[in-house]
Amino acid sequence: MIVLGIDPGLANTGFGVVARRRGRLVALDGGVITTASAMAGELRLKRIFDAVTELIASHEPDAVALENLYFGANVGSAMAVGQARGVVLLAAGQRGLGCHDYTPQQVKSAVCGSGRAAKDQVARMVQTLLSLPEPPRPDHAADALAVALCHANHAPLQRAAALAGASA
Amino acid sequence: MIVLGIDPGLANTGFGVVARRRGRLVALDGGVITTASAMAGELRLKRIFDAVTELIASHEPDAVALENLYFGANVGSAMAVGQARGVVLLAAGQRGLGCHDYTPQQVKSAVCGSGRAAKDQVARMVQTLLSLPEPPRPDHAADALAVALCHANHAPLQRAAALAGASA
Repeated sequence: MIVLGIDPGLANTGFGVVARRRGRLVALDGGVITTASAMAGELRLKRIFDAVTELIASHEPDAVALENLYFGANVGSAMAVGQARGVVLLAAGQRGLGCHDYTPQQVKSAVCGSGRAAKDQVARMVQTLLSLPEPPRPDHAADALAVALCHANHAPLQRAAALAGASA
Repeated sequence: MIVLGIDPGLANTGFGVVARRRGRLVALDGGVITTASAMAGELRLKRIFDAVTELIASHEPDAVALENLYFGANVGSAMAVGQARGVVLLAAGQRGLGCHDYTPQQVKSAVCGSGRAAKDQVARMVQTLLSLPEPPRPDHAADALAVALCHANHAPLQRAAALAGASA
């Protein structure tokens, strides 16, 4: 199973690709898609869309997991993040991939065991879980790997629950 | 000059196509792209994107004008509207079309002469300006035609200002 994790934003969209190989989780890719604020909005969104479409084509993930940030956002930032989310979801929808939202609290709980973990704690746990030589940088890439890990660990439980529901 | 006006929303995206022909403004198209809330978000966005891409291909507009609603929105609705805006801007960006934002107050001022005009007043003025047999319905289509009219009337002034600036 391969999961593409995305931390969407107009200026910085973090991405992380996580795969389960022989029971272990490994990182296949990670980084940040950046766009300059001097560019026209439609061209910034095209850059994000093209980059995510390319990530999907090269890694062929089974699902896309997105960090869904409501708290701390204001209407203006929510509109900007929403635009970036929109083109990420579209790139997934064009390939028939399911998209899964997780709040920062869910991601932190899944990765660190606490919904209140600090940013550097999340990065260190991502390092440990993926056996990386050092904590992933920058923060947006670490957050994207964390949401991919969160989905990779949730998905088997979701399937089990669906099976239990179907046989009940 | 042909302008595609868009009133973006996840459930209802209004569209209106306005052209200037021999000094008069005429409506070439108008309506609403609707998506059911039961559909997955990525498929709703794909439907909006595909419909807007098709409108651009068939009408070949020179510009896209969008209504930009900040006031009255909360973080959740801004995120949803932002996603719809994102795929509309992407459809324009893929064709190299410039996108222009107008607030509801700017649209009302341009169409009715007052930023505080009521919804039915806007629809009646859109009817008059475009010589339509009756006020456009539903509201999202009327709003999209209004923002297209707003841009069609602003654009000549913007060009004149740019020329004046260049020759000053």
